Amino acid sequence: MELSKRITTMPSSAMRKLAPFAVAAEEKGVKVYHLNIGDPDIKSPQQVLNKLHNWDINPIRYCNSQGEKVFLESQAKYYQNLGYDWVKTENILATIGGSEGILMIFLALCEPGDEVICFDPLYSNYATTAHITGVKIVAVPTSIGNGFHLPSREIIEKYITPKTKAILYCNPNNPTGTVYTKDEVEMLVNIAKDRDLFLVSDEVYREFNFSVEPHVSILDYMQGMPDRLIMLDSLSKRFSLCGARVGNVVSLNKDFLSMILKFAISRLSAGLVDQVMASVINDVPESFTKDLQSEYRKRRDVLYSLIREIPGVTVSLPEGAFYMMVGLPVKDSERFCKWLLEEFRDNNETVMFAPGAGFYATPGMGLNEVRIAYVLNVDSIKRSIELLKIALQQYKD
Amino acid sequence: MELSKRITTMPSSAMRKLAPFAVAAEEKGVKVYHLNIGDPDIKSPQQVLNKLHNWDINPIRYCNSQGEKVFLESQAKYYQNLGYDWVKTENILATIGGSEGILMIFLALCEPGDEVICFDPLYSNYATTAHITGVKIVAVPTSIGNGFHLPSREIIEKYITPKTKAILYCNPNNPTGTVYTKDEVEMLVNIAKDRDLFLVSDEVYREFNFSVEPHVSILDYMQGMPDRLIMLDSLSKRFSLCGARVGNVVSLNKDFLSMILKFAISRLSAGLVDQVMASVINDVPESFTKDLQSEYRKRRDVLYSLIREIPGVTVSLPEGAFYMMVGLPVKDSERFCKWLLEEFRDNNETVMFAPGAGFYATPGMGLNEVRIAYVLNVDSIKRSIELLKIALQQYKD
Repeated sequence: MELSKRITTMPSSAMRKLAPFAVAAEEKGVKVYHLNIGDPDIKSPQQVLNKLHNWDINPIRYCNSQGEKVFLESQAKYYQNLGYDWVKTENILATIGGSEGILMIFLALCEPGDEVICFDPLYSNYATTAHITGVKIVAVPTSIGNGFHLPSREIIEKYITPKTKAILYCNPNNPTGTVYTKDEVEMLVNIAKDRDLFLVSDEVYREFNFSVEPHVSILDYMQGMPDRLIMLDSLSKRFSLCGARVGNVVSLNKDFLSMILKFAISRLSAGLVDQVMASVINDVPESFTKDLQSEYRKRRDVLYSLIREIPGVTVSLPEGAFYMMVGLPVKDSERFCKWLLEEFRDNNETVMFAPGAGFYATPGMGLNEVRIAYVLNVDSIKRSIELLKIALQQYKD
Repeated sequence: MELSKRITTMPSSAMRKLAPFAVAAEEKGVKVYHLNIGDPDIKSPQQVLNKLHNWDINPIRYCNSQGEKVFLESQAKYYQNLGYDWVKTENILATIGGSEGILMIFLALCEPGDEVICFDPLYSNYATTAHITGVKIVAVPTSIGNGFHLPSREIIEKYITPKTKAILYCNPNNPTGTVYTKDEVEMLVNIAKDRDLFLVSDEVYREFNFSVEPHVSILDYMQGMPDRLIMLDSLSKRFSLCGARVGNVVSLNKDFLSMILKFAISRLSAGLVDQVMASVINDVPESFTKDLQSEYRKRRDVLYSLIREIPGVTVSLPEGAFYMMVGLPVKDSERFCKWLLEEFRDNNETVMFAPGAGFYATPGMGLNEVRIAYVLNVDSIKRSIELLKIALQQYKD
């Protein structure tokens, strides 16, 4: 009996596909600098850990499928504190990380065969989740030359077909670090309005904005277009809680919310412990976020200043998130990344990046690029880029 | 823009669809005895809670997508302690509860349109998850008259078509409480062997066996048929950890495991806290499980002895799990259950069951049945059945 083809033909995760080679290197005692995945080294807030240390709910029971009440309330308050005082718990559904939010959104908006417009390069797991749900990602190209900002409305609209259901964008962007301007976000809102599409904004990196302009949230437009706008969110990055699988979806579209609730009911409940510990985020002092921001800005600046000095490298200064797409002077960055893990050593150390092609829905794109997640401290970043520099000198393409 | 039909047309969860009526009653101060869902009142093991109180991993980072190492090791050891010393961590994949295990299995085994044979009545979320993944559940009827045991091989084989990919059964069974005999399990194994099908056994209730015969696990046959047998498991019930979303899949089929790993990678990671706290289960003293078993046996016995005395009720003694399917002297048990929540009051109390029809894949079946989850203490069960008795006297069908 054969297994199904729908997973075998799924693209591999760009961040994790080379993981076995890293494990093999580490098992031989090699130190690997992991710049391949957005798993930050920053400590989680003490308030969250205290919630574990003082845990008093017993038994560890199911939650309400929409989300544990204290979690929904704390998320509502978080958005209210950002100035969106109209966000109520009934507009929120808790998800098992941002990952499950993507799955729910694709299932709720699209029949198999329907299309969702994204911008290439894109977060690799949009493509894998689309594949599982039979959704076709239609990728509008953007380029390193203008910092991966959006093309004109005219160009984007060329990608709309009768099968198009939604536009999904990530702002600040993973994998490019681009923070879209107010004009860009408004353009997308207007396209959604005029062409009767859903517009989904992934704002997991909201606080990671290093540009002088404020981040423009889809929440700014939601009351004006309640039926078509959806926000996807997660606490993983802003509170260094990747392993707490807590995200949420925000919408004013009641039909959409009752539909994803039906899905949520079919998997019973998100985790009680993760939701309860995450419900204290409004008690985390502002200094936590400020320190986080200044730390990542420092890392970005160090990374950018060092990497642009390497001959043959193409790069633009990312405005946010903690990623950078970098063009390398190699033909096939996946082969190069594998070589880094399997063969290259300097003082028994090497470095790991995510091959760029995995972030493109369009075949043949990004072959010489890598995504760098600057999730390690400044010294480690310095050493990582030194390793890259030495490796490029030794590598035979 | 229309939402997708694949969720709107999904059957509602039999356990949770009446939840809003229960909430409404409770908001009016009515005490509702919840026998509708398998969320036990038994305390979680102290060893698990201690893991939270002494939490020392910071940041709360992503786990390996296959599962956090300590969790995989503790699950392997748990199976080894049961006598399956060949189970290794590489045969296990951690899932976000048993729910995600079902999703992974359907995606991995079936193309949209493929069929999976189940036995009616069945766990409601098999049907919802099949719907989401485009899998067709083909339900072989079983009946209350013989305690919902399996029909003959000849009858089961009549349901096999060229589209059939797998047989999925739950043992001990949710919702019927049936524990299948060795002959029954062997019959399914032989059908899978002779007809080239996958066989999936959901053994979430393994420890809840009140019959004199030992529970027969699919693990007993796995080495003899490594490619076709899959076990689905979860810690929710046996350790009273429903809100810790930790389950796992066990298989010796490497292609299957690498396929569900690919899915697991696409959602990055199960929860770190849930997996780490669940990794201490082998330190939980045997007395925990023994006490659990004797408590549930006591509840079953009380429930059975009281309910069979109610005129017009059909019931058979369940051998395991903590559920009982009961035929009531009503035409439409969903209407009756809703009436219990909305109108019936005795001393400002009422009782909640899950309507039986929601556990049948075959339309029109189970209309007069309810599933009772005996997850409350003996006194609450006594009062619940008293309420049922009074309600049946008052109810106008």
